[in-house]
Amino acid sequence: MSEIIPHWLDKQSELSPTDIAIESPNNDSISFLEMRKQSRLFAKKLAFLGVKQGDHVGILSGNSVQMVITIHALTYLGAVSVLLNTRLSSKEINYQLTDGAVTFLIVEEGMYAHGKEALHQLHLPIYTYSEIDRTDWKEVLLKREIDLDDPCTVIYTSGTTGVPKGVIHTYGNHWWSAVASALNLGLNDQDKWLASLPLFHVGGFSILMKSVIYGMPIYLLEKFEVTTAHKAITEKGVTIVSVVSITLNKLMDQIGDTGYPNTFRGMLLGGGPASKALLDRAKDYSIPVFQSYGMTETSSQIVTLSPKHATEKLGSAGKPLLPAQLKIVKDGIPARQEVIGEILVKGPMVTKGYFNKEKANQKLFQDGWLVTGDLGYLDKDGFLYVIDRRKDLIVSGGENIYPAEIEGVLANLKEIKEAAVVGQTDKKWGQTPIAFVVRDGSGISKEEIISYCQGQIAKYKVPKEIYFVDALPRNASNKIMRHILVDWLPKGDMESEH
Amino acid sequence: MSEIIPHWLDKQSELSPTDIAIESPNNDSISFLEMRKQSRLFAKKLAFLGVKQGDHVGILSGNSVQMVITIHALTYLGAVSVLLNTRLSSKEINYQLTDGAVTFLIVEEGMYAHGKEALHQLHLPIYTYSEIDRTDWKEVLLKREIDLDDPCTVIYTSGTTGVPKGVIHTYGNHWWSAVASALNLGLNDQDKWLASLPLFHVGGFSILMKSVIYGMPIYLLEKFEVTTAHKAITEKGVTIVSVVSITLNKLMDQIGDTGYPNTFRGMLLGGGPASKALLDRAKDYSIPVFQSYGMTETSSQIVTLSPKHATEKLGSAGKPLLPAQLKIVKDGIPARQEVIGEILVKGPMVTKGYFNKEKANQKLFQDGWLVTGDLGYLDKDGFLYVIDRRKDLIVSGGENIYPAEIEGVLANLKEIKEAAVVGQTDKKWGQTPIAFVVRDGSGISKEEIISYCQGQIAKYKVPKEIYFVDALPRNASNKIMRHILVDWLPKGDMESEH
Repeated sequence: MSEIIPHWLDKQSELSPTDIAIESPNNDSISFLEMRKQSRLFAKKLAFLGVKQGDHVGILSGNSVQMVITIHALTYLGAVSVLLNTRLSSKEINYQLTDGAVTFLIVEEGMYAHGKEALHQLHLPIYTYSEIDRTDWKEVLLKREIDLDDPCTVIYTSGTTGVPKGVIHTYGNHWWSAVASALNLGLNDQDKWLASLPLFHVGGFSILMKSVIYGMPIYLLEKFEVTTAHKAITEKGVTIVSVVSITLNKLMDQIGDTGYPNTFRGMLLGGGPASKALLDRAKDYSIPVFQSYGMTETSSQIVTLSPKHATEKLGSAGKPLLPAQLKIVKDGIPARQEVIGEILVKGPMVTKGYFNKEKANQKLFQDGWLVTGDLGYLDKDGFLYVIDRRKDLIVSGGENIYPAEIEGVLANLKEIKEAAVVGQTDKKWGQTPIAFVVRDGSGISKEEIISYCQGQIAKYKVPKEIYFVDALPRNASNKIMRHILVDWLPKGDMESEH
Repeated sequence: MSEIIPHWLDKQSELSPTDIAIESPNNDSISFLEMRKQSRLFAKKLAFLGVKQGDHVGILSGNSVQMVITIHALTYLGAVSVLLNTRLSSKEINYQLTDGAVTFLIVEEGMYAHGKEALHQLHLPIYTYSEIDRTDWKEVLLKREIDLDDPCTVIYTSGTTGVPKGVIHTYGNHWWSAVASALNLGLNDQDKWLASLPLFHVGGFSILMKSVIYGMPIYLLEKFEVTTAHKAITEKGVTIVSVVSITLNKLMDQIGDTGYPNTFRGMLLGGGPASKALLDRAKDYSIPVFQSYGMTETSSQIVTLSPKHATEKLGSAGKPLLPAQLKIVKDGIPARQEVIGEILVKGPMVTKGYFNKEKANQKLFQDGWLVTGDLGYLDKDGFLYVIDRRKDLIVSGGENIYPAEIEGVLANLKEIKEAAVVGQTDKKWGQTPIAFVVRDGSGISKEEIISYCQGQIAKYKVPKEIYFVDALPRNASNKIMRHILVDWLPKGDMESEH
């Protein structure tokens, strides 16, 4: 049955009113009580502007205390936050706003300029934070309780088909995710999490949820900046940091001889499989790394290497957290130990489905298990090793890039007959997308193709190189054989700009 | 919606197979993996004897590893544990077995003799642990998953009307209780809880749940024995102890000059309001005491004083745990600060109701809030102070004694016209029951009445003294005025045997 709990921010304001909810480098730290007060006032201003229970409200914003206040404000109204990636193109944002049935958009000041005209074509009410701040407020009944079955957020993930899909997270999904992490990593009075991942991604958002569910301060950065992040650990009492490979490497460049304070507990590493070199380096620095595996659909980590196995099982993503289950399926049946198969997961932190995507939702589950599409195996002790973040998926600086999406954009150019995109290993970003293109004979140039892409998709998705070929390698079923394309790539790592 | 999680003992066996689940003074410690193995085998033996999903299975046993194995075994079968207080009379046990629809009874060897004949009148299958151990086993499908909405235990509480009622706890009630406690007290690798309270009470049972949900070892005592309990803290690494006033006092008698190790985190104090003298004494010894408030219906503590307020708010039971809510109601409306009223609580650890007691269940809730019947107030900072464990309730050595139950027994004696029972302050037990009796003129003696009671109710419920009076003081509505009876008691504390 549906569980009802008190509103979590009300509760932390009651339990620990003066405790810090959010700290940041520019010293605008805010207590739970003050956060509640501001969030509730902001909710009433939004209500004045017409936002009401059940509305899908888009948020286009970089990390800030104001963004957190906005998210909490929407929970007080019972509205759903649709969190938009600020790096997307106007076209992509417009697609998500339409697909996500967003009826009201809140933008950070700087973002407004970003695609003002394109956004206005949607005839949505669009307000910046300060515009809302300046408005009147309306006395409305704010939520005192949270029904864990109610939707809380929609976060878009690019599907393997290349069509972005909005993952619905209930309050319960976020609750269980936070609790599962506490049962794995433990929880103590001194805990302070660094939030340098974008809050619009589930990895960053989950840190905000931990703050309000544990009553724990988080140290919030606008974005990952290595010296600030380093200082947060060495001088500001941060005990746990969520990282991806590239940020972990950068942090280790800073570490020097003194190392981290004894209170530092470790790095929670997500965003794709980590290289052995990276993990060995962390080991050399005596930095505990808790590798994890998760995705937007699982409300962040669902499998994590616990501290006690961090060294012994280097390279493994660990075991499914307590309320979760995992199985490896090969040819329709559970795979034996050490045999690679598809990863399926189940648990109360797993989404109930995508917003408004009936067909995709049917494929998403098998007998209640989420079909991740990722490949991996379990060792003899039941530890998960993820082989491929997802078949063909390109992970670049922690961002997922789906080849099919870029291929779709390329295919729209009439001068292109067909195209295939694969990931090239990259020293800086892990991977970057590379396109193989078959032209129609019109002689379109690399530069023209890249320029076209830049108007369509986020910069990090734009192919870093275009190779013209006569034909794409296909198998008997006419499917592109991507592994052959990978063989065609020049050997050695690239080093590119995002 | 109903949440599904993997079976928690399977899960701990997977996450921490060799970690200790239970330690005890006689060194029969057992790992999670071994606990799982033995519990599953025991389940198959119970299946051979006919126990199946949905059955209500009585357990009449003192604390032991075998009792824990039995409880887990029943969860693997999907059967419900009906936990019987070993101190009850055969008559009381028979009532609970019948009322609780128990179809199979498991008894500890020593208990079997206790009321063998009376028990056999019920024509129930009755087996001792060793009889089950010696039996064959049957291959059955054991539960791999837990549905949090399924019933897990039935634990009897005497109602204010004197009729014992079986509180149904779902798996979810126990889950949320354990998680709520972790969010309040924190959770770390070193934690080890002392379980000296009987597992058949919810306070003891909740420690077992913490063990299997946190993956934490517990140090299990057959019963509270002060030198063993003291040694558990000073030599065996116990970090948290659940106590009632009387056991806390006894432990402090032992503490001496060396005090407790630095790793000791504190005492979780339940079982009724604590005296200021007790709390001051603990403060003198620098023992953190987390006062708490809870009852069988709330799956143990629902309000707890957090470590950080333990000193500042001495005497308070604290604030409702994160997923819980509390309100004080007076004359049908929420009471103001500092005003005494009835305590109502709400949250996912609160029972959905009593087994097979439709009428009582209707009265138990008001708009989804559990009406505790207890009196208390909130101070200006929202901290709860419990005034009366329950109106008229007698708490003796942590055991609840309801006057109406004893009065019912006395009323059955034809030589007694009417009787009323109140609590007398007692140095050793906190309170003991005292009866005021109006005879019919037959001249029945104190000794005859006490002897009669001994055959009907548990020893601790038998009145310690009988006062013969001509009439009971009653008000205009003909209700007995108990406060006048209390005034009639001799002044000063008693010191009696249980």
